[in-house]
Amino acid sequence: MSSILLKQTTLNGAKADLLIEGNRIARIAPDLGERVGADREIDGRHYTVVPGFVNMHTHAAMTLTRGVRKDTTLQKWLDNIWQIEKNLDEEAVYWGSKLAILEMLKTGTTAFLDMYWFPKAVARAAEEMGIRGVITYVFLDNFDKNKAAAQRRECLEIFSASREWSDRVRFGVSIHADYTTSEETMAWAGKFAQENDLLLNLHLSETELETRKDVEKLGLTPTQHFDKFGLLGPRTVAAHCIWLNDEDIEILGSRHVNVAHNINSNLLLSSGYKFKFNELEDAGCNVCIGTDGAGSSDNLDIRESLKTVAMVQKAWRKEPKSLPFSTLMEASSLRGARALGFDAGRIEEGALADLLLVNTHCEAFTPNYDFTSNFILSANSSCIDTVIVDGRILMEKRKVAGEDEILDRADALAWKIMRR
Amino acid sequence: MSSILLKQTTLNGAKADLLIEGNRIARIAPDLGERVGADREIDGRHYTVVPGFVNMHTHAAMTLTRGVRKDTTLQKWLDNIWQIEKNLDEEAVYWGSKLAILEMLKTGTTAFLDMYWFPKAVARAAEEMGIRGVITYVFLDNFDKNKAAAQRRECLEIFSASREWSDRVRFGVSIHADYTTSEETMAWAGKFAQENDLLLNLHLSETELETRKDVEKLGLTPTQHFDKFGLLGPRTVAAHCIWLNDEDIEILGSRHVNVAHNINSNLLLSSGYKFKFNELEDAGCNVCIGTDGAGSSDNLDIRESLKTVAMVQKAWRKEPKSLPFSTLMEASSLRGARALGFDAGRIEEGALADLLLVNTHCEAFTPNYDFTSNFILSANSSCIDTVIVDGRILMEKRKVAGEDEILDRADALAWKIMRR
Repeated sequence: MSSILLKQTTLNGAKADLLIEGNRIARIAPDLGERVGADREIDGRHYTVVPGFVNMHTHAAMTLTRGVRKDTTLQKWLDNIWQIEKNLDEEAVYWGSKLAILEMLKTGTTAFLDMYWFPKAVARAAEEMGIRGVITYVFLDNFDKNKAAAQRRECLEIFSASREWSDRVRFGVSIHADYTTSEETMAWAGKFAQENDLLLNLHLSETELETRKDVEKLGLTPTQHFDKFGLLGPRTVAAHCIWLNDEDIEILGSRHVNVAHNINSNLLLSSGYKFKFNELEDAGCNVCIGTDGAGSSDNLDIRESLKTVAMVQKAWRKEPKSLPFSTLMEASSLRGARALGFDAGRIEEGALADLLLVNTHCEAFTPNYDFTSNFILSANSSCIDTVIVDGRILMEKRKVAGEDEILDRADALAWKIMRR
Repeated sequence: MSSILLKQTTLNGAKADLLIEGNRIARIAPDLGERVGADREIDGRHYTVVPGFVNMHTHAAMTLTRGVRKDTTLQKWLDNIWQIEKNLDEEAVYWGSKLAILEMLKTGTTAFLDMYWFPKAVARAAEEMGIRGVITYVFLDNFDKNKAAAQRRECLEIFSASREWSDRVRFGVSIHADYTTSEETMAWAGKFAQENDLLLNLHLSETELETRKDVEKLGLTPTQHFDKFGLLGPRTVAAHCIWLNDEDIEILGSRHVNVAHNINSNLLLSSGYKFKFNELEDAGCNVCIGTDGAGSSDNLDIRESLKTVAMVQKAWRKEPKSLPFSTLMEASSLRGARALGFDAGRIEEGALADLLLVNTHCEAFTPNYDFTSNFILSANSSCIDTVIVDGRILMEKRKVAGEDEILDRADALAWKIMRR
């Protein structure tokens, strides 16, 4: 069993040594280094250790559509993107996912929940690069019965193949949205997820328009619509949730739904910004942080998103005390890990070793009265020097293995799918 | 005269070579490198050249108060800060300004407008580190006649000393705000600035409260109040301008006032976010970008601010087409340089050589359909590899001369002023 010893590092507000054995944090104590050895020792004096981020909503391979003009509404932008996505194949998604994982590692994300096409290619990229994740099969049948049947078959085939995946990379199910997916498919996918104890991922009330249309057409809000099919529960991750009424919040809370807030995407697409963070928490939801895909966000940088969440909550509520930094840190790590079913997101003995070494010897942390404030508000993500996932060093001194090949291959494929 | 040749770089959307001679851009042409030599040649193939940022509102040495808890209103936060600032001296401001300039260079700012105490110390830091700036003497008399007289004497003394400053570092005048400064001082400072053709810097309508109080007490908005004393014109830079009515916008526009928008500070202090960017432009203002001090923002990262401006304008206007990226780039460079009276902010022959080499060989620019979109929305500021000011390389491969000493000295002084 391999081991890593971090010496004289800062964690949970004090100086200590930290020993990783295998894929878990084995010991935390002062002066541990004088008593134990390890395969690998790291001088931790300039570092503060924090849990790795968990990106609770993304479409990883959409990095390939980064920078496609989005000065348009969600619906028009989706139309553009869907046109481009027709040209996707396994190879493009594989390299697009690797590009996304490279970016996630560079910005401190150690686990992600993915909703995208060709999930086997996404899983292969995650397995090879060492990141943790739940990779979902996406149901989006456009109310077409033949497509729905084909999707069910494909989902079963990939679920079966996923038995070969490592414990680090797990399978889940997504329903794209209730305005793109038939009720038959929604019901089938929900039952399938429940019977197999799979995570269920949804887009929910992202825009005012989709929400209003549901009410007009069905007499139900999107929340009520999903709830009618029993799709809301503690194994559900609902992304966005911008346009909720009080009753929706009560439903989501009483079902203990995990909610992924994706502020940068919501702002850039003008979807809305008055996200009810506290109200959802108070109602019983597990509020987490996501980036959405790089097509709309325009990156996968959770730390940057935390600054935006802090700023926007303080601004629209006219309440500068909104959202303590400790809540934001927990929402972006421990809560996400719990929702995905991984024992990570905390720097404690016994937990999975998914952690970041943050270099505080730089201007952003000078002075360093308050590490968390500086980490969220003052730094950019290049302060994250080293990333460890499952006890393995995946980034060190900001270098990830195979970077150049990923940039070259993903770039070539991105231009190819745009030009087809 | 020293010279630098950038070979095969990307600028203004095409590949070219760029020759700097002395402190100006001398030539831009393809294959220039085959015909001319230079003291220093840089391989520009992975770089895109953009104008350096101009930070149009900051209090540089407030880096020393970075991370002091600000989950409070502007007024309560100011009370805290003013308590700490009583412990400032020349030495603290000198090292605090060096820390700020280090951070500005690391994030691509090549010129700044400063409003802070001990301006001679700020100017000395700027002179030594090579950045460009306008350093102002700040009038804030708290309606105390003795203090006002002392400030006038001190201002004259520093103005006189500023004749020894280089052409890169210029003197200006600030009036802190109309709610902290007597009308006598406002009038004197305005006349002094005008007679000596100095830049005049103001805080204007940052909060709803200060704006409402003026109206109740004086029957004038802050804009009308400043205008009554002839303080608004093309040599005035008004910071914030969040709480303006239509008439205020008309006044500011007709006087061609430069307006510095400081979105991160406005959000974090819950001051307000519905900044009238387009309306102020349309009325005739020169709308620029600032960060405010690191005490409230919490950094001096103009590129980060551009993303926030883009996101927030798109969100509150519910109009994803708001503010093209080209406007944001101009607002953060050319417009600021013009307002400060420097012939910089553009990559053209004859302009001052204040420019950034952005490394696009990284995940944030993969793919690179749209450089400006990626630079503002996808990257963080660590993509800025090299910073040139006045024809001199001040940062190269992200290293600035003397970094470690600045971090150490500023850190020690920050803790000292906090604990006194």
